[in-house]
Amino acid sequence: MGAGAVAAAGGARAADTPAPTPRPKAPKTPFSTTEAYDAAKVPAYKGQHKDVYAYIDAHQAEHLENLRRWVRQRSISAQNDGVQEMARLVEADLKALGFQETAIVPSSGHPGVWGYLDQKAKKTLVVYMMYDVQPIEPTGWSVDAFAGELVDDPKLGQVLMARGATNQKGPERAFLNAVASILAVKKKLPVNLMILAEGEEELGSPHYPELIAKYESRLKTADGVFFPMNSQTPAGQVTMPMGVKGIWYIELETRGGPQGGPKEAEVHGSHKSILDSPVWRLAHALASLTTPDGNTCLVPGFYDPIRPPNLEEQRLANGVLPQWLADEAARKDALKVDRWMGGMTAEETLYENLFNPSFNIDGLASGYTGVGAKTILPHKAVAKVDVRMVPNQTPAQLMKQFRSYLDAQGFADVKITQLSGYPAAQTTVEAPLVKAAIGTFNKYGVTPTVLPRLAGSAPYYVFTDTLKLPLVTAGLGHGSRQHAPDEYMVIRPKPGSKVAGLAEAEKFYVDLLYALAEA
Amino acid sequence: MGAGAVAAAGGARAADTPAPTPRPKAPKTPFSTTEAYDAAKVPAYKGQHKDVYAYIDAHQAEHLENLRRWVRQRSISAQNDGVQEMARLVEADLKALGFQETAIVPSSGHPGVWGYLDQKAKKTLVVYMMYDVQPIEPTGWSVDAFAGELVDDPKLGQVLMARGATNQKGPERAFLNAVASILAVKKKLPVNLMILAEGEEELGSPHYPELIAKYESRLKTADGVFFPMNSQTPAGQVTMPMGVKGIWYIELETRGGPQGGPKEAEVHGSHKSILDSPVWRLAHALASLTTPDGNTCLVPGFYDPIRPPNLEEQRLANGVLPQWLADEAARKDALKVDRWMGGMTAEETLYENLFNPSFNIDGLASGYTGVGAKTILPHKAVAKVDVRMVPNQTPAQLMKQFRSYLDAQGFADVKITQLSGYPAAQTTVEAPLVKAAIGTFNKYGVTPTVLPRLAGSAPYYVFTDTLKLPLVTAGLGHGSRQHAPDEYMVIRPKPGSKVAGLAEAEKFYVDLLYALAEA
Repeated sequence: MGAGAVAAAGGARAADTPAPTPRPKAPKTPFSTTEAYDAAKVPAYKGQHKDVYAYIDAHQAEHLENLRRWVRQRSISAQNDGVQEMARLVEADLKALGFQETAIVPSSGHPGVWGYLDQKAKKTLVVYMMYDVQPIEPTGWSVDAFAGELVDDPKLGQVLMARGATNQKGPERAFLNAVASILAVKKKLPVNLMILAEGEEELGSPHYPELIAKYESRLKTADGVFFPMNSQTPAGQVTMPMGVKGIWYIELETRGGPQGGPKEAEVHGSHKSILDSPVWRLAHALASLTTPDGNTCLVPGFYDPIRPPNLEEQRLANGVLPQWLADEAARKDALKVDRWMGGMTAEETLYENLFNPSFNIDGLASGYTGVGAKTILPHKAVAKVDVRMVPNQTPAQLMKQFRSYLDAQGFADVKITQLSGYPAAQTTVEAPLVKAAIGTFNKYGVTPTVLPRLAGSAPYYVFTDTLKLPLVTAGLGHGSRQHAPDEYMVIRPKPGSKVAGLAEAEKFYVDLLYALAEA
Repeated sequence: MGAGAVAAAGGARAADTPAPTPRPKAPKTPFSTTEAYDAAKVPAYKGQHKDVYAYIDAHQAEHLENLRRWVRQRSISAQNDGVQEMARLVEADLKALGFQETAIVPSSGHPGVWGYLDQKAKKTLVVYMMYDVQPIEPTGWSVDAFAGELVDDPKLGQVLMARGATNQKGPERAFLNAVASILAVKKKLPVNLMILAEGEEELGSPHYPELIAKYESRLKTADGVFFPMNSQTPAGQVTMPMGVKGIWYIELETRGGPQGGPKEAEVHGSHKSILDSPVWRLAHALASLTTPDGNTCLVPGFYDPIRPPNLEEQRLANGVLPQWLADEAARKDALKVDRWMGGMTAEETLYENLFNPSFNIDGLASGYTGVGAKTILPHKAVAKVDVRMVPNQTPAQLMKQFRSYLDAQGFADVKITQLSGYPAAQTTVEAPLVKAAIGTFNKYGVTPTVLPRLAGSAPYYVFTDTLKLPLVTAGLGHGSRQHAPDEYMVIRPKPGSKVAGLAEAEKFYVDLLYALAEA
């Protein structure tokens, strides 16, 4: 209370606070090599499949409609909106393509979709798909997010503007268009396909491991895992990430209880003069977790697991730096920011992105948030928080660290609920599937800059760790504004654009399948 | 950034933080008198108006319908929902009662309603009314908040359960029922009435001073101001507050800008690794404002204006302490709390309530607050905050103190927007109107405990300071859950209840008017 608290207070943190752990400069140690990986040295794929390309060109209208069908089907996993219908739509499309096996796969959450296309080929490719999408933002959309609208963008050309257009329905259905074209012309794919789609990627894929477990023995026999993706920037450049960060997504909640505050419902705001407030507690608990700029986590041990970049990561980082620096202005414009975190240089942000975890507040909610002034003392407050984990960090470890830190800070009354959590994933650039993808990019004159990893997350650990398979997420084409209003994918680029349209994206997928078969 | 911030950080507050001001023990200085004010010593009002009482009893059904008409008319000022219609309804009722003057009074906000009933009487009473109500809570209502439902409460008897039932439409319309009854039987009131109703009380009465200004010269000629109120607790006890605290209601907002963070829209959460976050900034700004328990404001000078309780306030406080202590269990049960703020004793909370300001967070909003996990980095965050001010604190003073403190703490990027603000108000217990009210309570055997002031707020300064008139808020009857789900007013109390029903509440108002005329 008053006196006690004041005595304890250096302000918002308790007296027994350990000295904060400064965020380690990323990379943790100086690089031991200045060598830069160069994807241009990978031989370009030489195969030509003109009859298939011609088929693709002749069927563009139909192929575009396939994408529009997919984005028009709502599938918001967080709100269980259209999920079942989308799963059935995906299965129906696999059946129509001639997959010998298809199945809606039950899980403890939203169902998965399995498909197997046996072509008696030597090699087998696993295709990862997600069929769910993010919720819709209440404002900011200039079209109906589920209408499958075609919009003429003055800079980009004709785009498909819809939730899921680029994350991830667009490229996924474009890949299936490519498969359909090969089958129509050649009657046979050069590789066998296993598809295992999930409907909970945007929830952090809590049950994808269950789906994997059901097919683990068969999936392990494959040669690699592929995730179709619009990899091109507006300038046509491509980055290929060799890994992803993990994610730990939690809710921090405070409520009235034995430590004070109303337990069952909000009360009149004037009662604050004699009551404790769970909302103030949440504000202090959050503030105790980072430095005042919100950019360094103060939880002891948070940064300890970070290992120095290995040789391959160093070579890849050296390789992407020039491109990263060249793109700085475009990146600032895309994110609408005046500066980088804490005034960092562009080079520093590359290393932060690759080698350090991020710590973010996704949402805050308590009490009255409507128009005007309503005077209440809320009985609870919630913060949604996520950590993007680098290799060696685990959800279990973070839960332990955060719980004991909050307890030590006097925030035992703050409840931690994990909504999702999985570790990072990594693939070596020397894997045949990776070389096939890079070779195919080189054929199209779009030599990729190969990233050690993405700052974003995906449940790829199930492939790289559980199945021990290399994973490639790649493709020609461009889209953006995923998780934001007016998400889009380019369909017919403006003349002179360096971005591939839908047809060329499909041809890339065709060549990739052959390149893998021949690798 | 990183290093800098860490160096500066004792954690969540900047290095140049002044030592926190401990909340002064309330009262600031020891009382100089142990004398206790005793309302029982005020002579009970002796008048009898049996014909009027009989009329009231005979017209209960009709009178109840008047209350239901009022609560059925939505009038949510914060959402401009039904406000105009309610203003017209109030004016129409005054016309119907025979007020010679009635008017809808335009203001810069919602309109006021004026009415003057000239009875050629010596004394004139100003009746303050509010015709607006709070927004509806999304959950927790067991009836339609605007249906005017009559509910049988096992403890209380028949209650009117609706938004506005007790705050404030119920008692206001009950008062008008009393006026109608006198006019019907006696053809004449013992006093002249001036009514000036507002539709923005729940917004902090931003424009009531405009309304007052329009009638100031006439209002100043009155003998006092009366606000009808259900003053009884479930046990039948009455407290009469001689004043109210002021209120300063603000929004604290952080957005992306030159100091970093996305400026125009939310971005993907993974970008936190290279971007600043306005949400973390708000958490730290809030935490910098209080001790970790959220119970002591750290803004320098915040508590300085508090003056020691004067002799009258001391006598009143001494008078109410026994009742306050006796009610502790009931109060805890009503608020659903396990303890008082910071573990205070019941006696300490009385003094906190009376003599210290409160500092409350009414709401928090940022980013994604729906079901499940959505990973975004929001471009803005908002906190709704209110201070309940004691005498000598002013909104202008608080704005200056908070702005310079936040600037000194390194939070110049935190925007402060005042939604409402007005000072405290005080009336002396020696005023004739006050004595008339207490005398009337004594007639009904319900001797009030007279509070120095309420912890809540109302714009009474316009009466006590601008018009220099004594103000009384009083009445028999009971209601509760204002600003919360299932708000109610008792209509027909259970047999044996100590609570007055609607009929007795109306008789009290009748006697009060005569008592004032004879005072």
